[in-house]
Amino acid sequence: MPNLNFHPAGRHFLQIPGPSPVPDQILRAISYPTIDHRGPEFGVLGRKVLAGIGKIFKTTQPVVIYPASGTGAWEAALINTMNKGDAVLMYETGHFASLWKKMAERLGLEPEFLGLPGIEGWRRGVQNDLIEQRLKADTAHRIKAVCVVHNETSTGVTSDIAAVRQAIDAAGHPALLMVDTISGLASADYRHDEWGVDVTISGSQKGLMLPPGISFNAISPKAMEASQTATLGKSFWAWDEIVAMNSNGYWPYTPSTNLLYGLSKALDMILDEGLDNVFARHQRLGEACRAAVRAWGLEIQCVEEACHSPVLTGVMTPDGVDADAVRKLIYESFNMSLGAGLGKLKGRMFRIGHLGDCNDLTLMATLSGCEMGLRLAGITLQGSGLVAAMEHLQSTARPVARHPEG
Amino acid sequence: MPNLNFHPAGRHFLQIPGPSPVPDQILRAISYPTIDHRGPEFGVLGRKVLAGIGKIFKTTQPVVIYPASGTGAWEAALINTMNKGDAVLMYETGHFASLWKKMAERLGLEPEFLGLPGIEGWRRGVQNDLIEQRLKADTAHRIKAVCVVHNETSTGVTSDIAAVRQAIDAAGHPALLMVDTISGLASADYRHDEWGVDVTISGSQKGLMLPPGISFNAISPKAMEASQTATLGKSFWAWDEIVAMNSNGYWPYTPSTNLLYGLSKALDMILDEGLDNVFARHQRLGEACRAAVRAWGLEIQCVEEACHSPVLTGVMTPDGVDADAVRKLIYESFNMSLGAGLGKLKGRMFRIGHLGDCNDLTLMATLSGCEMGLRLAGITLQGSGLVAAMEHLQSTARPVARHPEG
Amino acid sequence: MPNLNFHPAGRHFLQIPGPSPVPDQILRAISYPTIDHRGPEFGVLGRKVLAGIGKIFKTTQPVVIYPASGTGAWEAALINTMNKGDAVLMYETGHFASLWKKMAERLGLEPEFLGLPGIEGWRRGVQNDLIEQRLKADTAHRIKAVCVVHNETSTGVTSDIAAVRQAIDAAGHPALLMVDTISGLASADYRHDEWGVDVTISGSQKGLMLPPGISFNAISPKAMEASQTATLGKSFWAWDEIVAMNSNGYWPYTPSTNLLYGLSKALDMILDEGLDNVFARHQRLGEACRAAVRAWGLEIQCVEEACHSPVLTGVMTPDGVDADAVRKLIYESFNMSLGAGLGKLKGRMFRIGHLGDCNDLTLMATLSGCEMGLRLAGITLQGSGLVAAMEHLQSTARPVARHPEG
Amino acid sequence: MPNLNFHPAGRHFLQIPGPSPVPDQILRAISYPTIDHRGPEFGVLGRKVLAGIGKIFKTTQPVVIYPASGTGAWEAALINTMNKGDAVLMYETGHFASLWKKMAERLGLEPEFLGLPGIEGWRRGVQNDLIEQRLKADTAHRIKAVCVVHNETSTGVTSDIAAVRQAIDAAGHPALLMVDTISGLASADYRHDEWGVDVTISGSQKGLMLPPGISFNAISPKAMEASQTATLGKSFWAWDEIVAMNSNGYWPYTPSTNLLYGLSKALDMILDEGLDNVFARHQRLGEACRAAVRAWGLEIQCVEEACHSPVLTGVMTPDGVDADAVRKLIYESFNMSLGAGLGKLKGRMFRIGHLGDCNDLTLMATLSGCEMGLRLAGITLQGSGLVAAMEHLQSTARPVARHPEG
Repeated sequence: MPNLNFHPAGRHFLQIPGPSPVPDQILRAISYPTIDHRGPEFGVLGRKVLAGIGKIFKTTQPVVIYPASGTGAWEAALINTMNKGDAVLMYETGHFASLWKKMAERLGLEPEFLGLPGIEGWRRGVQNDLIEQRLKADTAHRIKAVCVVHNETSTGVTSDIAAVRQAIDAAGHPALLMVDTISGLASADYRHDEWGVDVTISGSQKGLMLPPGISFNAISPKAMEASQTATLGKSFWAWDEIVAMNSNGYWPYTPSTNLLYGLSKALDMILDEGLDNVFARHQRLGEACRAAVRAWGLEIQCVEEACHSPVLTGVMTPDGVDADAVRKLIYESFNMSLGAGLGKLKGRMFRIGHLGDCNDLTLMATLSGCEMGLRLAGITLQGSGLVAAMEHLQSTARPVARHPEG
Repeated sequence: MPNLNFHPAGRHFLQIPGPSPVPDQILRAISYPTIDHRGPEFGVLGRKVLAGIGKIFKTTQPVVIYPASGTGAWEAALINTMNKGDAVLMYETGHFASLWKKMAERLGLEPEFLGLPGIEGWRRGVQNDLIEQRLKADTAHRIKAVCVVHNETSTGVTSDIAAVRQAIDAAGHPALLMVDTISGLASADYRHDEWGVDVTISGSQKGLMLPPGISFNAISPKAMEASQTATLGKSFWAWDEIVAMNSNGYWPYTPSTNLLYGLSKALDMILDEGLDNVFARHQRLGEACRAAVRAWGLEIQCVEEACHSPVLTGVMTPDGVDADAVRKLIYESFNMSLGAGLGKLKGRMFRIGHLGDCNDLTLMATLSGCEMGLRLAGITLQGSGLVAAMEHLQSTARPVARHPEG
Repeated sequence: MPNLNFHPAGRHFLQIPGPSPVPDQILRAISYPTIDHRGPEFGVLGRKVLAGIGKIFKTTQPVVIYPASGTGAWEAALINTMNKGDAVLMYETGHFASLWKKMAERLGLEPEFLGLPGIEGWRRGVQNDLIEQRLKADTAHRIKAVCVVHNETSTGVTSDIAAVRQAIDAAGHPALLMVDTISGLASADYRHDEWGVDVTISGSQKGLMLPPGISFNAISPKAMEASQTATLGKSFWAWDEIVAMNSNGYWPYTPSTNLLYGLSKALDMILDEGLDNVFARHQRLGEACRAAVRAWGLEIQCVEEACHSPVLTGVMTPDGVDADAVRKLIYESFNMSLGAGLGKLKGRMFRIGHLGDCNDLTLMATLSGCEMGLRLAGITLQGSGLVAAMEHLQSTARPVARHPEG
Repeated sequence: MPNLNFHPAGRHFLQIPGPSPVPDQILRAISYPTIDHRGPEFGVLGRKVLAGIGKIFKTTQPVVIYPASGTGAWEAALINTMNKGDAVLMYETGHFASLWKKMAERLGLEPEFLGLPGIEGWRRGVQNDLIEQRLKADTAHRIKAVCVVHNETSTGVTSDIAAVRQAIDAAGHPALLMVDTISGLASADYRHDEWGVDVTISGSQKGLMLPPGISFNAISPKAMEASQTATLGKSFWAWDEIVAMNSNGYWPYTPSTNLLYGLSKALDMILDEGLDNVFARHQRLGEACRAAVRAWGLEIQCVEEACHSPVLTGVMTPDGVDADAVRKLIYESFNMSLGAGLGKLKGRMFRIGHLGDCNDLTLMATLSGCEMGLRLAGITLQGSGLVAAMEHLQSTARPVARHPEG
């Protein structure tokens, strides 16, 4: 094995917005011996994870689990429902929205990219009025799907999906609503059924605290119906056979058994903590992180108060400061990985992940590394973000240890 | 975690023809903490596995590693190179060849299925003369690809790929040669470059001794060229971006980091044993297994001596005996999983896997379980297969322990 | 890490009579992060293992768990209860009984070694009449303890401890009864309370299926009382402080936390299978093993039918055959470790372990390796032990897989 | 398995002064399958760890590795060298020195406890002049050993062992020098040979970053000689047989195989980082920690500048504040374990561990938890310790990531 940690000692702080740190229990779960995916034990495993994953998506509809990483689930959503040349309305929230649009093009669709100009759209959530307006104009209903990113991992902006649904309904438009919540699921509240989403796409390596390698499509009846007549070639991604086989807990082809072990454990952990507690924990850590950035006197990438992501925080470096050089300095000096600015934001910001298996002290460690690194990089900070974050955490702390009796 | 072994005690014998038993070292490797797939450590890992995997395919051409299971790599091979409506000549060696053909149909291709009638084709290797003949008849070169399965997992028949290449060449036909060696790679000799294969498809959960979840396309220059003009929509599977990013050891989207840890370890183990030693070990175990089946007086599914698979052996149960009932009895009584008869062979045979991390005593244990189970099922055996297998193993045994000095 | 398996491929068969193969679940359990041994979580762990271990010893009295390997528990039993110069009656069942006697001498006691002459005593269980006779002669009650080995690991002989108790009682002698069941516990039935044992000594690396490193003293009230006035210097081994602290699940000094994780898991596994089922499984495997040895025409070390060990079988090699050379050949050729002949039996026999996490197919693999190795060593066998063992296993097989519903 | 973390999410911060957090690599190492402790692989392992451990103790003399926790190694040192009624001069540095003295009493020795009165001696290192003075007075050389604790875990005071040696030499006294560096080894510089120590005692669960369960005696020729005539009963702890067997890498009785796997890995990690770098890292973290305590306006337990421990820092709580209540609050609110005040200091202080696999951000997290917890407990702090610690770390930071090229 090559060396997986170039630092001489101590734990690496993986504070990128995913893959998030995988808890020990999950790492051990995925190291159980691989079993026969046609045997009775597998059926029990399969039925368990399929039942549990629906609770995370808040859906009673089928959730397909692919033995493929998140990008594959993007493709699956489009491939299953669309036809060659179909128009899809995609909203530019950031780099990942852009990549999804590029994918739509490569798959032979005709994506239309909606959004605010320049970098502005990358600092705000989905503007629902733009969507409503555009759909109203599409009287011929050429647009077959509206595609939005729930939590844009490249910026730290979380959009209001219920509002997008309302915009589509207000326009009286039949387009499918497809939502990428790859980095939002199990960190930010998400309601596939209640919000009327047709296809929700997610992955394993974020709020689910798993390694990358499996991904998800939650599917509404309307999307399922569309898939029956859609004509893009589909086989590996095809929902029909998977959903049929899933009824007994099996898959038509070999599933990613060991990552399903991890999923089983992750579901136990998340549902045991309670989804609402998980969301509240993420919100609180996000608030503390933003308190730190403000105390430093740096700009947060997201400028809409209602849209701050509980998953990650984008921090803009002052003009003239190469954010990637700061990240490198922090990596080398303090054994911590941060997320880079992507696409239009390359070198302009860095991203702090505070998702998944994160707690107060992990966040404080993270902010310490950032604060020291920023200073070492020669940036003058207005104050100590650490102290500001600590104020927030301290004032909102509650004893949470669960004693065996409790 | 649900119970992953319904047996009260002792190790489970996973003797299906894949997923094969994952060695402890590999299970531990995949349980290392997930790292930043954009960080410097990952680059070292990526470059290492990409360099090593070429040696296994015996190629100096690019090998794409997908964060998706083997069925995905089938799709990738077709999607990257074909166009809607393209004719592909596929050879029916068994159930998996049939599934691949079905996939081609779902992807919008026009597969033509060549083979011997009924069950006969499922007992023999690819008949190269049929291919040559068919290609010669295709004077218009409508056929764009010839697709064959190297080691048919459903039957235990290994075909001669070099001979397929010769047949194509003899016909002077420009079709691409695509070979599925999902269950053959790293167990049976395979030579992507020397045999002139255009796309080789493989997976992780067989000879590579990994859990399922990653898969491979080895790509000839001719296939790569075809991909540049092929018009099926491709994005997740698209070779171009992956190969470009791989030059530095990275991927365009999130790779399956933890399974790549396992791959790194698997490559160490296989190359340390030596590919030729690995192949010889599989051949010897296959011979011993067949000696047992013959001693039992049962029929081996494969009837061509030159085509016996070193990976698995298909055993036909006597007329009137439900092979699945035998398998269930063995599973319940002796804590061992065997492969089922698939497709045309359902209930007619079972499959003994002797691949991957298998050695003499594991095979003897396996054959013991079979022999006892067959008898418990009321089948009269001609003799002890165990004794026959032991004769073979004993007469060909060599001390192989490598002392620290050696 | 140095290479821990000098064989190129496949699982090592660790068929020595301990350390026995550690199941995956236990290996994973011991790899959980070490916790604060003074924190609340540890208390839950401590209370759990202390409650569970009593069930294994079949006692309601204290069982002290030492963070030390089994030899330490021997010392603890003597140190806690004896005084300098005390006479102890020890029974020579084999090599380990001899080592225990040597320990008693080094600790300043005066052991008297009872037994049959030469190698004869190493082929039979404890002769209770000899003990009764000797104790009756000790009218002055100089003898303070009777020490016997329940399952002599060097020979494969299991003695009747209830009968030893009866012999002591028949002699009306007040000596303490100390029993080493290091290799018997959790494989052969053992009843600390019912059999009136005063100190039972055991270890982790045999029937409990753990790595070596922790060990046990089960303590009768009479032994506990003796310890209060005994004058050998004792501190690390002293029962008093440990038993006092154990009431809350803690230890006076740092316990072996990670091996206690393993113990917790092992207790779950054993009690879930059911002690009686565990014992029956060991008996059945022992019978099959002996059937093989008899079919080979070789002598079993134990010559008393009632005393055959369910844990291991000692196999004598024919005159002139160096048993260690056979073992080496088997190790090198078939990736299996067997136990050596010890002490008086060095080079004269080898020992087959069939304890702990062992099942039918593991035993068949083991016997295959033995049969091939014996033949390769040039020994003429009367018949196939493999076939004989298989007959026994097959005729006594029952489906034991527990389906999720069951 | 019982729940080993009562907190709902995120990593536990185990900041007690041992057991220290065990790195992932070591946890995985100890989960490798247990092997035959008489086989050739074990010999390689044994020779490796025995060679490596000497480098850590800085000795060319034998280092005995016990399959027993640290308290056992204390006993071993005394048992091997002393005789009943021997006078030993022990120095009271704190709670652990007191426990060692109590052990000496239980073993039948006559310890004399030297030290400053009341709590004063618990705030300073060994006063060498007291030792010199006492030894000079012992003209009859009744004192057979001088026993001191190098790094007193209960207080955070590290004594100057070379100076103790000088004191003994200055007195011209023949007593053996025995040093407990259970919590100092591999964190603070230690030189068994150069400092003329006769028996050095250590354990696994501190600077060596292993779980508890194995322990050490490094032995000078003079101590070895003493052991040959010493008359306390010794068997399990006896050096002679172990040292003899160790020459080939084996042990006379079953060693703690899986913890030796961990030791092998730990040696690799420590020697790869470099002992001097390890010591410098501990010193720097200790300085940062003390900077925090001073900024809070709290007292550090150790009042001698030269004796501050690089392993842990003892923090006294203000009068009237129950330190254990503060610890509990921190445990419950911030998922961190701190060490309690022991013995004379119970409830008066808490201990922060910054040893082993600790780095800058781990320490910052730790101090964050302390600062928030102290405030939540109602203690008025003079200033932010966090900011003070950060100043120190930042001003002394160096990039330490080792790139693959380097």
